[in-house]
Amino acid sequence: MKVSDDSTFNFFRTTAIFILSFESCLNLIAAPPQIEGDSLIRFSIKAPHAKSIKLDGGFDNIKCININTNCIENLDSLSGDLGGDYQIEALVKRPDLYLYRYIIDGVPTLDPENCYTLRDVRTLYNVVYVPGVDSEYYKVGGTVGHGAISYPWYYSDTMKADRRISIYTPPGYESNSDRRYPVLYLLHGMGGDETAWPDLGRVPQILDNMISEGKVEPMIVVMPNGNIARQAAPGVSPLGYEVPDFYLPHTMDGVFESSFPEIVNYVDSHYRTLAEKRSRAIAGLSMGGFHSMTISATYPDKFDYIGLFSAATDASSFNKETLPEIYKNRRNKVRNLYNNGIKLYWIGIGKEDFLYDMNVQLRKDLAEDGLEYTYYESDGGHEWGNWRRYLVRFLPLLFR
Amino acid sequence: MKVSDDSTFNFFRTTAIFILSFESCLNLIAAPPQIEGDSLIRFSIKAPHAKSIKLDGGFDNIKCININTNCIENLDSLSGDLGGDYQIEALVKRPDLYLYRYIIDGVPTLDPENCYTLRDVRTLYNVVYVPGVDSEYYKVGGTVGHGAISYPWYYSDTMKADRRISIYTPPGYESNSDRRYPVLYLLHGMGGDETAWPDLGRVPQILDNMISEGKVEPMIVVMPNGNIARQAAPGVSPLGYEVPDFYLPHTMDGVFESSFPEIVNYVDSHYRTLAEKRSRAIAGLSMGGFHSMTISATYPDKFDYIGLFSAATDASSFNKETLPEIYKNRRNKVRNLYNNGIKLYWIGIGKEDFLYDMNVQLRKDLAEDGLEYTYYESDGGHEWGNWRRYLVRFLPLLFR
Repeated sequence: MKVSDDSTFNFFRTTAIFILSFESCLNLIAAPPQIEGDSLIRFSIKAPHAKSIKLDGGFDNIKCININTNCIENLDSLSGDLGGDYQIEALVKRPDLYLYRYIIDGVPTLDPENCYTLRDVRTLYNVVYVPGVDSEYYKVGGTVGHGAISYPWYYSDTMKADRRISIYTPPGYESNSDRRYPVLYLLHGMGGDETAWPDLGRVPQILDNMISEGKVEPMIVVMPNGNIARQAAPGVSPLGYEVPDFYLPHTMDGVFESSFPEIVNYVDSHYRTLAEKRSRAIAGLSMGGFHSMTISATYPDKFDYIGLFSAATDASSFNKETLPEIYKNRRNKVRNLYNNGIKLYWIGIGKEDFLYDMNVQLRKDLAEDGLEYTYYESDGGHEWGNWRRYLVRFLPLLFR
Repeated sequence: MKVSDDSTFNFFRTTAIFILSFESCLNLIAAPPQIEGDSLIRFSIKAPHAKSIKLDGGFDNIKCININTNCIENLDSLSGDLGGDYQIEALVKRPDLYLYRYIIDGVPTLDPENCYTLRDVRTLYNVVYVPGVDSEYYKVGGTVGHGAISYPWYYSDTMKADRRISIYTPPGYESNSDRRYPVLYLLHGMGGDETAWPDLGRVPQILDNMISEGKVEPMIVVMPNGNIARQAAPGVSPLGYEVPDFYLPHTMDGVFESSFPEIVNYVDSHYRTLAEKRSRAIAGLSMGGFHSMTISATYPDKFDYIGLFSAATDASSFNKETLPEIYKNRRNKVRNLYNNGIKLYWIGIGKEDFLYDMNVQLRKDLAEDGLEYTYYESDGGHEWGNWRRYLVRFLPLLFR
């Protein structure tokens, strides 16, 4: 343990040793994951009696070395009781933030040496960062200006309650008290909440870095909670430490979309926005892409920039008898949106995404109707790695 | 799994089942900790092959029941391989937020059924909430007004860099654009950072609830990072996913305290504060208590309310030859602070705190010098349970 040059406060040191000694007794390999190059991650875990360790995180070419015997072991049938210090090498496809956890003898286990986690719906994973192309934007910049992320609550007349919302204001927002800014509304997917884009999506870091490089206009980013049945994310709502639900009522029944102006009104009346169509964008991932498509088409005078990231785009799988009015005649409404004038309709989808075919159909409809759009096709599927990359490609196109 | 009334999007359901099926295969007991009354917590863990489970969290009267055999088992020598479903009962002293984790066969393991954690320095723990006296204030209120927590960065001339700071603004701050508010500066202890009071300290919840009940004046709460060698908390600083250090340079060499006016200036120039002594308070825990004592005594024209929570209070354990000027003649400086006029000097300490004797000495000095203070002695030691309780007792005394 590093002892600082000025920590002459012996009583603090005593407490620290007391607090940390329990950890030391465990004699852990003191190492969070190490990165080699832009594709190899070396994990370390001490599991003295484990018969089986799974590395849960979708990695390729996993190899396990028993540090005590220096032998390669099979993660499904470990020798166990031979010290139990393992190094597990795994390959990744590209620089990114990766989520992982272990399953040790059937028990999901977070890495005891890595105190950084992210929650994806109801499951916690450890985070490991591989620097490189794109992912450089996900890191906190050392010398760049920093915007602020804040979590106010707005009153929702629809819900008759306060609802929590995440708002990024760009560097200089507090100091330049006369300047007004354009606004991107950024929507999460099913199972997500107002913390998804700031945390998993690395919005503050991506915006700080890209604004600092002059690649992106300084803007406000508004990330509401798209689950109209919830006031706030799990753990920070009045429901307390509930078990998060992937499915919630009223996520795709049109209520969120039809009530969206109350969010825009709140933002325009509480922040120094450019409250006009050409200074507003809306984008979302998966369910949030569907929300963005519906909201932009329902309110054609509100947004000049629309982004659909791995979006659900087809309401035909709904029960047609109960299909909410707001979801009917989508094709006509989108034509109307274009006729009203927009600057960007951006579609991003992964080749392996289960919503790929739906996006093929949307593009076919747009082409038949003579409506231009920008298309970005990536590898991979329905995953945060893609949504961060889409955001990095979408942002520079806004408000220019 | 609960399926909502409107989730007719089969493609989402398919993905969800795919995502969640891995969890289901593990056949976990689907239960986060359950609370009975205000003192019994019932933990559930499935560890199919475990020979030993420790419940790390300082609980009393721990009892383990093997659900499969309905027998009481010894956590140090479990039968193992008999299903491995355990219920562990434990008693707590009072309603509070409790931190816990398991150690299963030597591996620190977070509860797979509880996605809520808090980081204390470098260790993650699960959180379990026991409602009742005091702890009712730690819960997100359902009908109360909600303030906002935000994380801007201010420029530190001392450090020549941006530094992250946590700021709570009370309910109505955004709407009442003419109103100015008093400010509490709230400082963390060694090993902490700007996230300690908002997260472990439950500041947004305590303030929302107590302001809503009219027990506390609406105020701004400013929680800076007291580690002058760091720009921000672990994980959100340019250092990335570092292993957090308990010891850091420049935590107690006087630099933080002497540079404190730059924080006050930032807050007064960027927030609608009442920028005057009678509308400013400063309090801190442990090292932050020492900081608060030093800052208030160094700048006797700045703060009318001072709070020392389990504070380090004696600089005599420093090497006297290198004792920074700002720490010298503390007793004279505190006398001068009182002479200049203050409204509250509040001292809270636990009977079992390792800093108890130091606080006895401080109170003796104050009494000898004829200086009045408010004293609150609790049970327990150097722990967040006490610091939350002290805050609940300190806040109603401010700005009245």
